Amino acid sequence: MAGIEPMDAHLTEETIASEEILRGSFLRAVRDTVKLPDGALTTREYILHPGAVMVIPLLDDGRIVLERQYRHPVKAVLVEFPAGKLDAGEGELACAQRELLEETGYTAREWARAGALNLAVGYSDEIIHVWFARGLTLTQPQLDEGEFVEVITADPGDFLAWCRDGQVRDAKTLAGALWLQNVLSGAWDLDWRP
Amino acid sequence: MAGIEPMDAHLTEETIASEEILRGSFLRAVRDTVKLPDGALTTREYILHPGAVMVIPLLDDGRIVLERQYRHPVKAVLVEFPAGKLDAGEGELACAQRELLEETGYTAREWARAGALNLAVGYSDEIIHVWFARGLTLTQPQLDEGEFVEVITADPGDFLAWCRDGQVRDAKTLAGALWLQNVLSGAWDLDWRP
Repeated sequence: MAGIEPMDAHLTEETIASEEILRGSFLRAVRDTVKLPDGALTTREYILHPGAVMVIPLLDDGRIVLERQYRHPVKAVLVEFPAGKLDAGEGELACAQRELLEETGYTAREWARAGALNLAVGYSDEIIHVWFARGLTLTQPQLDEGEFVEVITADPGDFLAWCRDGQVRDAKTLAGALWLQNVLSGAWDLDWRP
Repeated sequence: MAGIEPMDAHLTEETIASEEILRGSFLRAVRDTVKLPDGALTTREYILHPGAVMVIPLLDDGRIVLERQYRHPVKAVLVEFPAGKLDAGEGELACAQRELLEETGYTAREWARAGALNLAVGYSDEIIHVWFARGLTLTQPQLDEGEFVEVITADPGDFLAWCRDGQVRDAKTLAGALWLQNVLSGAWDLDWRP
């Protein structure tokens, strides 16, 4: 269903050329020239992103760990699951462990990969890998310089009510809430590993 | 919880300056200079987006309407709820009605606003307003030139299994799945209007 299948030629675009249109200190963007399914040419502009990992951390007492963080593009403090970009050559699990520790101070005894999502498919190639963590132990957060994050814990029921009421509005976190709800209800399985 | 509260001064950034760094044919981006909570200065680069609406269309027979569309940034055909950008000055509901008709050919008798989400909070100001539609009647899709979309229908249970298995991986659509699951179970209410 996702991905390109032979029968999808009537939907698929072919890259003819690519040029960099932005090399900022944080953002990189390209403009590709593509051939549409009907043979016409058009351009597609999008952000190049290294990929990221999001962690859904489950405390032994049934609560979950979240962050409150000011997000300048939307000028608001948002409630989010911990997440961060993959370093060059870094594996998903290593990134998940690093980001959870750096941003929240927690280490985890067990991990399970839930899946992956694409964040802004119209203008970014970003993929976010989704991992659950449990068996948490609190140590000391190690925030990067210039990073200001408040760590909170919440009852999953309260968290889902925040999703319903608009107090959680970050797309990756709402996608994580779908996972959380179905894992906690037993509808969706996880493959936990030490 | 979302938004800025007086007690959030320890998280909030203040904009000092802003400059445009990209004006493409499709993407616009700015670089803001901001003062961090500790008084240090840094820059934030992000995409300016006009906002969008996503529609979760419910057929009278219990199935839902989805699209399959090639997304060049991720080089894949993705399964998504219908969505599109707000035109200048356009209201949310007008946009929802227009996009549903243009992309799928359906009109709806009743509409309900579910909420809103921010798509890529690290590098975009995009907000997506989420609307449900029911009482659907099929007419003729009116795709924009250069737009290639395949309309499919699905049982909600199958759709949720696709979310679990990675066949649905678009973040806004996964966030919509959280809404769909809770509306169909009766856990979350909607305020339907003609």
